[in-house]
Amino acid sequence: MSRFDQITVDTSDGVSLLTLHRADAGNAYTPIMRREIVEALDEIDADDSVRAVVITGHGRHFCVGADLAGNSGAKPFSYEGTGQRDDKSRAAETISGVPRDGGGVVSLRLAAMRKPTIAAINGAAVGVGATITLPMDIRIASSSARFGFVFTRRGIMPEAASSWFLPRVVGISRAMEWVATGRIINAADALAAGLVSQVVPGEELIDAAMEIAREIRDNTSSISVAISRQMLWGSLSESSPWWAHERESVVMSELKFGPDAAEGVASFFEKRPPVFPSSVSTDYPATAPNWPQRPTEYSD
Amino acid sequence: MSRFDQITVDTSDGVSLLTLHRADAGNAYTPIMRREIVEALDEIDADDSVRAVVITGHGRHFCVGADLAGNSGAKPFSYEGTGQRDDKSRAAETISGVPRDGGGVVSLRLAAMRKPTIAAINGAAVGVGATITLPMDIRIASSSARFGFVFTRRGIMPEAASSWFLPRVVGISRAMEWVATGRIINAADALAAGLVSQVVPGEELIDAAMEIAREIRDNTSSISVAISRQMLWGSLSESSPWWAHERESVVMSELKFGPDAAEGVASFFEKRPPVFPSSVSTDYPATAPNWPQRPTEYSD
Amino acid sequence: MSRFDQITVDTSDGVSLLTLHRADAGNAYTPIMRREIVEALDEIDADDSVRAVVITGHGRHFCVGADLAGNSGAKPFSYEGTGQRDDKSRAAETISGVPRDGGGVVSLRLAAMRKPTIAAINGAAVGVGATITLPMDIRIASSSARFGFVFTRRGIMPEAASSWFLPRVVGISRAMEWVATGRIINAADALAAGLVSQVVPGEELIDAAMEIAREIRDNTSSISVAISRQMLWGSLSESSPWWAHERESVVMSELKFGPDAAEGVASFFEKRPPVFPSSVSTDYPATAPNWPQRPTEYSD
Repeated sequence: MSRFDQITVDTSDGVSLLTLHRADAGNAYTPIMRREIVEALDEIDADDSVRAVVITGHGRHFCVGADLAGNSGAKPFSYEGTGQRDDKSRAAETISGVPRDGGGVVSLRLAAMRKPTIAAINGAAVGVGATITLPMDIRIASSSARFGFVFTRRGIMPEAASSWFLPRVVGISRAMEWVATGRIINAADALAAGLVSQVVPGEELIDAAMEIAREIRDNTSSISVAISRQMLWGSLSESSPWWAHERESVVMSELKFGPDAAEGVASFFEKRPPVFPSSVSTDYPATAPNWPQRPTEYSD
Repeated sequence: MSRFDQITVDTSDGVSLLTLHRADAGNAYTPIMRREIVEALDEIDADDSVRAVVITGHGRHFCVGADLAGNSGAKPFSYEGTGQRDDKSRAAETISGVPRDGGGVVSLRLAAMRKPTIAAINGAAVGVGATITLPMDIRIASSSARFGFVFTRRGIMPEAASSWFLPRVVGISRAMEWVATGRIINAADALAAGLVSQVVPGEELIDAAMEIAREIRDNTSSISVAISRQMLWGSLSESSPWWAHERESVVMSELKFGPDAAEGVASFFEKRPPVFPSSVSTDYPATAPNWPQRPTEYSD
Repeated sequence: MSRFDQITVDTSDGVSLLTLHRADAGNAYTPIMRREIVEALDEIDADDSVRAVVITGHGRHFCVGADLAGNSGAKPFSYEGTGQRDDKSRAAETISGVPRDGGGVVSLRLAAMRKPTIAAINGAAVGVGATITLPMDIRIASSSARFGFVFTRRGIMPEAASSWFLPRVVGISRAMEWVATGRIINAADALAAGLVSQVVPGEELIDAAMEIAREIRDNTSSISVAISRQMLWGSLSESSPWWAHERESVVMSELKFGPDAAEGVASFFEKRPPVFPSSVSTDYPATAPNWPQRPTEYSD
């Protein structure tokens, strides 16, 4: 079904289901998995027929973190001799003269998506298995899910750009408490902190995530959602609401007289499902932002 | 009672009640209403006798969104031929070569207030009816209130600078879920998300909002509140706490030896209500910030 | 036990307990107390044997605010003639030509810590007694605790850099409501707002705070925690997740092959408590951020 080794992608009826697929290893994260996720997201983002992405883990866990198997020696995060090094990987790319952090490659790819992303988190989401979910738009969890930002317990530090995303998703105080202690967080605490927006029994998890994806697919304009993603996330990079006002004025002056606005209002008045004509690949406005822009000083 | 057509303003005992007043149309937002709100806020802000503003909607709803009546054709947001175009409006003003988004004109005026603003949200607050409440300081709702950031369902995008305000008011994850789905949110969910700070039965809504306004009026210094608004909101435009430390040091060095500080401490020790002598129009410190500053590049 | 007059510091088993110690005056804050807190934090931060700091108040209250005793005259915040002026104090230092706000001196020192700080808040935390807790990493409270950001009721304004910290800790809407009204907040409301992460009976408060401190001490690497503090708080000063990605890549490239990472992974696999060899004073990476950097324009 898939040309990928460590993930699967199933697309049907406008929704892609991306599954981390190394259940024997708790879907432990590897350089190969990283490259495959990025390639899959590239394809999904370019495919106008896909309206939303659900990301989950095969088997008991979402992702238990970086694959440390065979790595418990002096360089546990090197992947040398594990068969998981990946010379085709984007990690070959450097930043400030060092290899790019692997989790961050996925996080920044997710941040740039034009399609909404929904994490369906089953079992353990630990380390990079927790941090790569932070740039996703929506996270829901099974009641047995548990989260761990365990970096301080492993002698390392938060990665996957989570030092930027986590305080913005759960607030600086909660983020500091979770990271300073490195403790495991259960689903109820994750819900209370806003890390996830819904907790459901494990057997209902995929259905619940798919329901949100279908809610988006059936009711919304794809360019409206793409622009909204870039504008809301992008606002976090901007200090003044005048930025939003200027961008909104410019993009809206195009959008509000366009075919999706006409269809959105017509279907509303006619009390029928909308059929929006625009597509992201051809109709994404040139004036809309593309977040997060890669800073020029990093383009090495 | 009012020289306005689509709103009313009643000021008594130091509190202004601004009511959207097109109940037959669910207080649907028009260019005329927009201009009237801004004019009313200009007057309220200049009137030292007013200590707080409550903003609500007449009849069943707060505001059902942009007025689309007679507009269901090809250009639903143009207001042409609706009798609601407003040539006197500030919307004639442009930004980056396009007309300024109408909701943003109100949002940025609200953001610049020196008086605290309290939204008392009854019934539906949808589209611009939801987004213009975000720059207000306090939002409370009736138990039958419902909110909708429905832009993606209408083929448009978040406006009224809400792409900046919404992630800051309810967090980026909640904001993305609400905007990507465009779904309707009930009062209980709005409370849980911090969109409103209180939910009360509909018949108690105005009283509850007025009680907060009177709490401010009876206990606080008007310049203290004005400075606090500008400092707290203004901090969102600043990356470093050193900014706050520098501004606080400078403004406080003036304030702490001023007449309101003397009265504040004296009334505290004497266990009596304070009578603060300062007024915003004459005593607002020149060193205090004025947020949000209109960027020079936008002053067209 | 202590060479300080208005605080005590007890360090044992890797945890420092800093106690505001003017119980007869409700631990009212003075220039002398401010200098002593900063000196104590300087020492704690330089001492590699200390892994976490708990800060509490002696007696019934955490801190009732600025000491106004004998100060109810025309200049209630001047400390002239109170015996509490402190010529050795860092407040002699100026910023933009005025004396630095005293609370801000402590807040910015706390923000710069390399050790995690835990506030154990008993009784009243009012004014500066509330605001200096905001840059701490974790706040827990006794069930009888109450908080007051009462500045507008005293004719002054938020200080201790709280106009920057408070909106980031509890959100802009909650912050504005609390500051505009100046009302007193009980422990349950503080918990609901995320101002504190836990409420316990008064007699269990210190134990609960110490338990968090020991959780950090027993399980985590000191440099991992120090770097995490600087990265997560520091991210609030940065507009783009690319900043995090670049810093994380650079610092992690050093950390992941270091001795603490080897020990963290080894102890995890061996299911035993870790013994991390690195120490903050000698091993803090030169590439890690130091937040918040004092802006050059303020170094007067």
